Amino acid sequence: MVSTRPVRFTTLSRDPATSARVGRLETPHGALETPAFMPVGTQATVKGLTPDLVRESGTRMLLANTYHLALRPGEETVRALGGLHAFMGWDGPILTDSGGFQVFSMADRSKITDRGVSFRSHLDGRLLELTPERAVAIQEALGPDVAMCLDHCPALPASREDIAAAVDRTIAWAGRCKRAHSRPDQSLFGIVQGGSVADLRGRCAEALVAMDFDGYAVGGVSVGESREEVRKALEVTTHLLPADRPRYLMGVGRPQDILAAVATGIDLFDCVLPTRNGRNATCFTARGPVKLRNAAHARDPGPIEEGCPCLACRRFSRAYLRHLFNAREMLGPILATIHNLTYLHRLTAAIREAIRAGRLVQLHREVLEALGP
Amino acid sequence: MVSTRPVRFTTLSRDPATSARVGRLETPHGALETPAFMPVGTQATVKGLTPDLVRESGTRMLLANTYHLALRPGEETVRALGGLHAFMGWDGPILTDSGGFQVFSMADRSKITDRGVSFRSHLDGRLLELTPERAVAIQEALGPDVAMCLDHCPALPASREDIAAAVDRTIAWAGRCKRAHSRPDQSLFGIVQGGSVADLRGRCAEALVAMDFDGYAVGGVSVGESREEVRKALEVTTHLLPADRPRYLMGVGRPQDILAAVATGIDLFDCVLPTRNGRNATCFTARGPVKLRNAAHARDPGPIEEGCPCLACRRFSRAYLRHLFNAREMLGPILATIHNLTYLHRLTAAIREAIRAGRLVQLHREVLEALGP
Repeated sequence: MVSTRPVRFTTLSRDPATSARVGRLETPHGALETPAFMPVGTQATVKGLTPDLVRESGTRMLLANTYHLALRPGEETVRALGGLHAFMGWDGPILTDSGGFQVFSMADRSKITDRGVSFRSHLDGRLLELTPERAVAIQEALGPDVAMCLDHCPALPASREDIAAAVDRTIAWAGRCKRAHSRPDQSLFGIVQGGSVADLRGRCAEALVAMDFDGYAVGGVSVGESREEVRKALEVTTHLLPADRPRYLMGVGRPQDILAAVATGIDLFDCVLPTRNGRNATCFTARGPVKLRNAAHARDPGPIEEGCPCLACRRFSRAYLRHLFNAREMLGPILATIHNLTYLHRLTAAIREAIRAGRLVQLHREVLEALGP
Repeated sequence: MVSTRPVRFTTLSRDPATSARVGRLETPHGALETPAFMPVGTQATVKGLTPDLVRESGTRMLLANTYHLALRPGEETVRALGGLHAFMGWDGPILTDSGGFQVFSMADRSKITDRGVSFRSHLDGRLLELTPERAVAIQEALGPDVAMCLDHCPALPASREDIAAAVDRTIAWAGRCKRAHSRPDQSLFGIVQGGSVADLRGRCAEALVAMDFDGYAVGGVSVGESREEVRKALEVTTHLLPADRPRYLMGVGRPQDILAAVATGIDLFDCVLPTRNGRNATCFTARGPVKLRNAAHARDPGPIEEGCPCLACRRFSRAYLRHLFNAREMLGPILATIHNLTYLHRLTAAIREAIRAGRLVQLHREVLEALGP
């Protein structure tokens, strides 16, 4: 039976020693192989990069922020301009978050009830409300390939009682999002909450799976807990999620964390790390971060990373990049962002190759050894 | 007799009704046709653009600032990295100014004597000196195709006495620059000063021509005087300059001013206007400036300018560009800069075509009519 879902996932290869898999994700705007990293284009632009530069860095799918775009320019403006793809000139797949995370972290004085979240805009203090139905309506107006359910992500540490309440609300809201969602060319993913509490993660996952979403995200990770807790939360969650749906770990982008999560069966990642670090002159390399502002690079003719095929490494020296950052020139953040995205896309490509070759554990060990302590 | 000058100029076509000409400028880093506009890459980068985007906008030759680069990263650093072309990843022709203009306009407490200018760095207050010999030495270290003599550019209005003194000093310094200059793969241009005083412009031009420079610039224009005074200064100057050398009008980039100057026989232009205006959301169009922040563009699906082949106009709406500027996203300045450079390069291409067709006066009238009041 051929799936009629707008986003379809096929497993192409499995790692024998872990739960990792190579998959193919088909969307209305093209297909990509997973595990894959999605750069964050918060305000309908990956900061500083033209869409061509985003694509040249290896990006196949990217993320935009519902909260930011609903406030400015407004989802009806984006709809009037033909939707997010046309608006931002990106014809590849797009996923939008639900806006919930920003409402909890950025908006002033947000107040949560079973109905939804009321909050004040961080831009102009307007009083606004985000309900599950409204989160879906905004995302249907924006028009990404994948929309996300509104969830309740509690800050950790939190009591079991608070986490359980957030799980109940997340489950209830997921049901309301599913009923509200009507756009046939858009997929809707559910988000599993539950903090670091195994049975709450399990309850949330099972309830969402029963609702039959097009894909599942693991949310509420990297919000204050230890790496060991993250690993546990992932392990108890992913094996409850159906193998024929994509699994997306929200907000994780450190190379070591991506490798660990892939081993538990995660397919998709997003994080501001490569773009934000790039703007701050910090670059990923196989041997750990390089800080371009360091005086050691003042006359260094070498690239950020030997062998990297990105524009920054092919054409420019560390000395020039350091100069650009010292002189507060835009081209510094632009080139460092290009490098960091290229690094993560090369890492996920190496991960896919390792899974196919049955040597993910070995790759994981090699990467950690090269990165150092 | 074949010229052994590192930069050679050949006239390809003359306009019958004006002094305008189409020329070919050959440099160690390639040839270009004139009249041409050179974008300003103050700190060894055209702000926000990769070298590929600079070239795609139609740029063939660009300018970098001696003052800024001597202060940061220092000319010896640029030399150690292989010179400006390698440093900034631009393999086309480069011209550097002498640094004099920035010393007069940006440095703190500059003090001028016949020996040179002593000044305090605008970055850290260091006390430094710029002499004609030092200006040449810095530019030989930077390694552009064309270096400029150190000149004395008085702010206007100024007394005839002050302008005459600046002319005398400019002539004396030009002689010292010529004697100091030794790099065989680099041309040195003289700069004609003299404010709006015809006989002082004449005296300066004749003295410099007698020194036999590879090209000549008209300096001290657009520093406070009226457009009518600029036109007069140009007319009395350019016809004294040898026809077989390129003529460069410094710091002029308004479309109407470029057209007027071309008619007097100017070949090269530079100006921060397209890049600075672009960063401020103001775009050149044939019908006059478009301010992208205006609310009128909030849902405008059209490009900055219909028919413009630039990346910004091909792929993005005014509505999206307005959003980028409102959201303070780097991509706004980047795209507006690309458009403005493309506009000026298309204008100079149209000027060259009009000269070849003997219809420059007609083009001038058409452009002014379309621009409006």
